[in-house]
Amino acid sequence: MNVNRLKMQIEFIVEMDKLKRVVRQTLLADASRQENSAEHSWHIAIMAFLLQEYAEVKPLDIFRVVKMLLIHDLVEIDAGDTYCYDVTANQNKAEREQKAADRLFNMLPPDQSEELHALWNEFESGVTPESRYAAALDRLQPLLNNYITGGKMWQKHGVKKSQVISRNQRIEAGAPDLWKYALELIDDAVAGKMLSE
Amino acid sequence: MNVNRLKMQIEFIVEMDKLKRVVRQTLLADASRQENSAEHSWHIAIMAFLLQEYAEVKPLDIFRVVKMLLIHDLVEIDAGDTYCYDVTANQNKAEREQKAADRLFNMLPPDQSEELHALWNEFESGVTPESRYAAALDRLQPLLNNYITGGKMWQKHGVKKSQVISRNQRIEAGAPDLWKYALELIDDAVAGKMLSE
Repeated sequence: MNVNRLKMQIEFIVEMDKLKRVVRQTLLADASRQENSAEHSWHIAIMAFLLQEYAEVKPLDIFRVVKMLLIHDLVEIDAGDTYCYDVTANQNKAEREQKAADRLFNMLPPDQSEELHALWNEFESGVTPESRYAAALDRLQPLLNNYITGGKMWQKHGVKKSQVISRNQRIEAGAPDLWKYALELIDDAVAGKMLSE
Repeated sequence: MNVNRLKMQIEFIVEMDKLKRVVRQTLLADASRQENSAEHSWHIAIMAFLLQEYAEVKPLDIFRVVKMLLIHDLVEIDAGDTYCYDVTANQNKAEREQKAADRLFNMLPPDQSEELHALWNEFESGVTPESRYAAALDRLQPLLNNYITGGKMWQKHGVKKSQVISRNQRIEAGAPDLWKYALELIDDAVAGKMLSE
């Protein structure tokens, strides 16, 4: 056993714990509090294998999707969660997150740092069917929780239907049937006055 | 698309959200609060692929390990988290958790209910190398967080070294090198007065 290698891995594992303290603009399904990015990542990782039949391309490498989803938000440990409807904060998001990826993944031994960089870059680029399906789930889960909680967070931030559509449209490329379902939720949210037109 | 099938899957996905409210007897690494079972599951799912080189048997089906770890605590939605050193609560734990597994997994379409039952049963039985490696990580992460936080939870519950050893000994069967590392942590915790002899 290479003691230095294990030491690096354990230090990364302890560092990862910080994602449990990164709070998102999504409520838990019972609206009791905002969720954090570790919980969110857990939720969508399970969704990845439960909803794989709706992926645009089949078969997919679902394990790669799950790994992407588990690690995709780790950069928020340094960069914070950037609310998707915050135009200003999104301007330098890519730069902040790239720096975070470099610092965090480089805590690991080189082979694993490379693997995590590759997974994260694949997720961010959206060029593979796996990354497009992963991105679809990353959007569907907050939409679902927003709907379930009566749109409280949409109202709080004054978000409109057109913004929700343009933000979540990427679901279509990864999972067309889930996009149809999402559109039904959005229409229903507008009809039920949870989301403004 | 089978609308009823998707409806069942979405209802299960919303139900899963409740795991974010099941609080465990482990602190976050910065000791700011107790962690919940969704965060814990996320943490060990990533550990599963980062530490796979220490598994007793190689190669393993690491994706099955990750799936087991992601879903292994879902039963706590009904059964609650049973603190590992609580003897009384552990007496009817198996029965409570079996009932929970039946109710929860049966929310899904039959093929997926069967898959989740099989994963959960495999994890619980510990008969495969995958389940033994998964169980090792399920124990290592709380041990690590207990150590990092100066043993606050051990002290709060009056837990002794012998109990920590007997609880975590299962790490050895799944990942012998990680057990060696865990024993070093435990000895160090005793030497540093975080854990009583």
